[in-house]
Amino acid sequence: MKKQLHFCLIGGDLRQGKLAECLANDGHCVHTFGLDLLPEPLSLPQANTLEQAVEPADCVILPLPMCGENGLNLPFGSMPCSPEQLMAVLRPTQIVCAGMVDRTFAERAADQGLVVHDYFAREELAIANAIPTAEGAIELAMEELPVTLHGAQALVIGYGRLGRLLSARLRSLGAQVSVAARRYDALAWIGAEGYRPLHIAYLEETLPSYDVIFNTVPTQVLGPDRLSLLAPGCLCIDLASRPGGIAFEVAAKQGVKAIWALSLPGKVAPVTAGKAIRDTIYHILQELGVFL
Amino acid sequence: MKKQLHFCLIGGDLRQGKLAECLANDGHCVHTFGLDLLPEPLSLPQANTLEQAVEPADCVILPLPMCGENGLNLPFGSMPCSPEQLMAVLRPTQIVCAGMVDRTFAERAADQGLVVHDYFAREELAIANAIPTAEGAIELAMEELPVTLHGAQALVIGYGRLGRLLSARLRSLGAQVSVAARRYDALAWIGAEGYRPLHIAYLEETLPSYDVIFNTVPTQVLGPDRLSLLAPGCLCIDLASRPGGIAFEVAAKQGVKAIWALSLPGKVAPVTAGKAIRDTIYHILQELGVFL
Amino acid sequence: MKKQLHFCLIGGDLRQGKLAECLANDGHCVHTFGLDLLPEPLSLPQANTLEQAVEPADCVILPLPMCGENGLNLPFGSMPCSPEQLMAVLRPTQIVCAGMVDRTFAERAADQGLVVHDYFAREELAIANAIPTAEGAIELAMEELPVTLHGAQALVIGYGRLGRLLSARLRSLGAQVSVAARRYDALAWIGAEGYRPLHIAYLEETLPSYDVIFNTVPTQVLGPDRLSLLAPGCLCIDLASRPGGIAFEVAAKQGVKAIWALSLPGKVAPVTAGKAIRDTIYHILQELGVFL
Amino acid sequence: MKKQLHFCLIGGDLRQGKLAECLANDGHCVHTFGLDLLPEPLSLPQANTLEQAVEPADCVILPLPMCGENGLNLPFGSMPCSPEQLMAVLRPTQIVCAGMVDRTFAERAADQGLVVHDYFAREELAIANAIPTAEGAIELAMEELPVTLHGAQALVIGYGRLGRLLSARLRSLGAQVSVAARRYDALAWIGAEGYRPLHIAYLEETLPSYDVIFNTVPTQVLGPDRLSLLAPGCLCIDLASRPGGIAFEVAAKQGVKAIWALSLPGKVAPVTAGKAIRDTIYHILQELGVFL
Repeated sequence: MKKQLHFCLIGGDLRQGKLAECLANDGHCVHTFGLDLLPEPLSLPQANTLEQAVEPADCVILPLPMCGENGLNLPFGSMPCSPEQLMAVLRPTQIVCAGMVDRTFAERAADQGLVVHDYFAREELAIANAIPTAEGAIELAMEELPVTLHGAQALVIGYGRLGRLLSARLRSLGAQVSVAARRYDALAWIGAEGYRPLHIAYLEETLPSYDVIFNTVPTQVLGPDRLSLLAPGCLCIDLASRPGGIAFEVAAKQGVKAIWALSLPGKVAPVTAGKAIRDTIYHILQELGVFL
Repeated sequence: MKKQLHFCLIGGDLRQGKLAECLANDGHCVHTFGLDLLPEPLSLPQANTLEQAVEPADCVILPLPMCGENGLNLPFGSMPCSPEQLMAVLRPTQIVCAGMVDRTFAERAADQGLVVHDYFAREELAIANAIPTAEGAIELAMEELPVTLHGAQALVIGYGRLGRLLSARLRSLGAQVSVAARRYDALAWIGAEGYRPLHIAYLEETLPSYDVIFNTVPTQVLGPDRLSLLAPGCLCIDLASRPGGIAFEVAAKQGVKAIWALSLPGKVAPVTAGKAIRDTIYHILQELGVFL
Repeated sequence: MKKQLHFCLIGGDLRQGKLAECLANDGHCVHTFGLDLLPEPLSLPQANTLEQAVEPADCVILPLPMCGENGLNLPFGSMPCSPEQLMAVLRPTQIVCAGMVDRTFAERAADQGLVVHDYFAREELAIANAIPTAEGAIELAMEELPVTLHGAQALVIGYGRLGRLLSARLRSLGAQVSVAARRYDALAWIGAEGYRPLHIAYLEETLPSYDVIFNTVPTQVLGPDRLSLLAPGCLCIDLASRPGGIAFEVAAKQGVKAIWALSLPGKVAPVTAGKAIRDTIYHILQELGVFL
Repeated sequence: MKKQLHFCLIGGDLRQGKLAECLANDGHCVHTFGLDLLPEPLSLPQANTLEQAVEPADCVILPLPMCGENGLNLPFGSMPCSPEQLMAVLRPTQIVCAGMVDRTFAERAADQGLVVHDYFAREELAIANAIPTAEGAIELAMEELPVTLHGAQALVIGYGRLGRLLSARLRSLGAQVSVAARRYDALAWIGAEGYRPLHIAYLEETLPSYDVIFNTVPTQVLGPDRLSLLAPGCLCIDLASRPGGIAFEVAAKQGVKAIWALSLPGKVAPVTAGKAIRDTIYHILQELGVFL
């Protein structure tokens, strides 16, 4: 590291705690607010007030997602904090980064001459997060299935970032992997990387053959009719963000085991997830000309 | 299947229940004793007496391990049964298979003209069991580690059946895998299959670098001195049978997280484990000239 | 196949011959022109005149690339043929497909009410072609290197279609694979898929360590200065289209073995390359509502 | 290296030349005899007489195979040399290593108090040699097939060292891999590592489906009847030592392309093959208490 910076971390979940530790381990000065109730307390200065935390910072890092139901997303903070309170203490010379930036906040910040950089919108973080998500999905399948993934018939729906990393893991664990997609280029990739390509519109024929299905597409690809075709005991894991891809109520009625697994990175590998955010913030800083 | 047989299954754990279902699904007649308390009751005839179960059988399958502390190993049976009681009802024309055969029982059986075939002693079952063991070890590591296996530094001690299957899975999940062995041929295989080979006698230098260590060797390779070299947070999973390879009491004192994971196949994948026993019993029958 | 079509194939290399056979094997009627001098003669009707070949066709398939120095690209044809001659016999109801469509030809065709579909411009063909290119590159490296790829230090420059498929093959053959790219998202993918990510602008430090380097980027990434850093015996394989990425003349002077390997699919796997074109033409037809 | 030794290398092929260079690069003194006609001359002292080469040596390394038709195997030597001439100049304090030791020579050496260590008989060298053999087989298949290995149907006969390393490479290049073996444990491994297991006695059914077949078993597994079942264009590569596994004359008559590929390591990767011999000789020395 060529340069030591002052970071202020405000709120967030376990990942943000690990992010704070990562930054400190890299030699930076880290000030935190709204992380005083973490299950494993940080050995880092916890500011008593928002002002104390923000004041010395070159870079202020807000949580992912930035806002919860009651202002900033501070599940492990003993005191609430509204976006307005935060705005009042930020200076235009500070670099502000946040995950899933609130649009209203961004607009007001702009009025104040502040740019809010959304680290969650960056492709490299999305890729990095797909790794713990894929591992978490594998872990879940191993826990739930009475058979090994080795020898299992697996279907992955969608071949984006997550579908790509998940399919590779399933195959190398010995599963027979089919992957469903819609576009010709995605289908070409699926074939090129050695999986059985299936068009997402014509899954009916193969549905009865799977031991486990992973969905990564946020539209209802497994509706009532398709669910009724599944083999007894077939496990469905939905990894898609809202509205998800499985008709969960129908699944429950039909005895299909369906699990909606959201936000896996922070749950299964908070340290890895924290590092991924750190790397992304470093990229933002480098692009802004702040050399680390 | 060319020929329908009568099987009698006596006792055992979840695997034996799944084995019974497998055999029935293959079209055989399956009689059971000592499996009446399984959490998921079998939809197969449960004999009221040992005699009823054994009498019609061409092949009698005893559990794995065959004996527990109080006679035959019947954890899901409502009535106990001693080896002597069983011996009294077996006929010399019946094929008897058991896992980890009790030596005294085998000798007495021989006096009666009965051969007891030990399916657990067969190499193909040992290989087949290494698959769910490797998956179970991966699952455990994923549950316990705050980082992903992707990018983790992993050490596998021993390159027998389990070491070989486990190393391949770890690597394909993105871990950096070192494998320790003693013999030159094992070390040559480790290199040939692309892992970093380490001599088991000289691990000290690399020990501080691992996030997770899997031991498969049943002698104490991780004693007090070596445990003291591990990085904080390093996870140790011992997959070796008794006496294991880790000084667990010392590990606990030193704050090293060490887990002794035994009998994984029946726990993590009873269906797969049951099928593996079925396949092995079919092999025994084929070698005895019973064509299926 | 639901529907039999009449195809007319005009010119091209070995691939086009294999494409003709594929289409015939699928049950279509195939008429050819300009393929009468193939080393292995086709057992398909060879039209005596362009008119005879084109007249019955529902779909006319022109070569890849469409034009050579003297009109249409007919290296295995005994008679030349100009784009103008072809234009004169095409009808607006015919579907015309070509690879790397000549712009002038496309404009004149449009004037005549004809759309020329460029199959080479389609992403799925580019992906499919990357497979034989990657294999051809591996084959070349195996032929040229006095060491095995197993254990070799390999650098892949660029992580597009080809870089992705090539890196996976090198790694699974046991090479230590570094991959260089420029964008953060590409670097994130490289890491996510388990290779060592390197920024393309900072290769100098690692250059002396490679046994083999594969370039896929069509700008000069290996200029004189970088070539001078390579280890003696390092093999450079350039897979980039013109202008390529290696200063070949300098390499020759410095004793660096550098090979520019172009058009590998048609050379190393003409059957596979022909099938890939067939699949792409089927996609074009399906999108035009011609059901096969 | 803790200790410098004097090595004498006598004869052999390209590998032996590379072995000499490896030993010299490791800091040892290397004397050679019978390597004066190598295509790339060694920059190492070439003794004028056998005595000069042998006299200073702590360890004398004979070629692989040790003997040819006219005495020692010296294809790149300008002067012949008989085992008797060599015996006359060896001293009992010298360590003698050879590949495929001639039995008569070994017995006479024993009479003189000399032990001849056969490096080729050691398991670790056999494993190490299987790597370039597997790569050479892949290279050959790529050169000969008009399709890519990606997507090809491949059969590997035998699952010993070579079968194991070859199958892994074929699969990772995208082939559909079946592996034939005879023993239940080998079949269990084939399944455990994710290939389709086939019993070697029952190959007839699947034979028509392959694009390429690799044999590693030195008994005639592909006789006339089986050859007649192959698909037109199926490529057969025999990697088995004498007597091989394919009825080559019949294959030629039936138009089956069959290639007997022997001694691949020295041909396709002499540097790697030389290093493998070096490592094995170091192991022999270590076991004899000579610390390097």
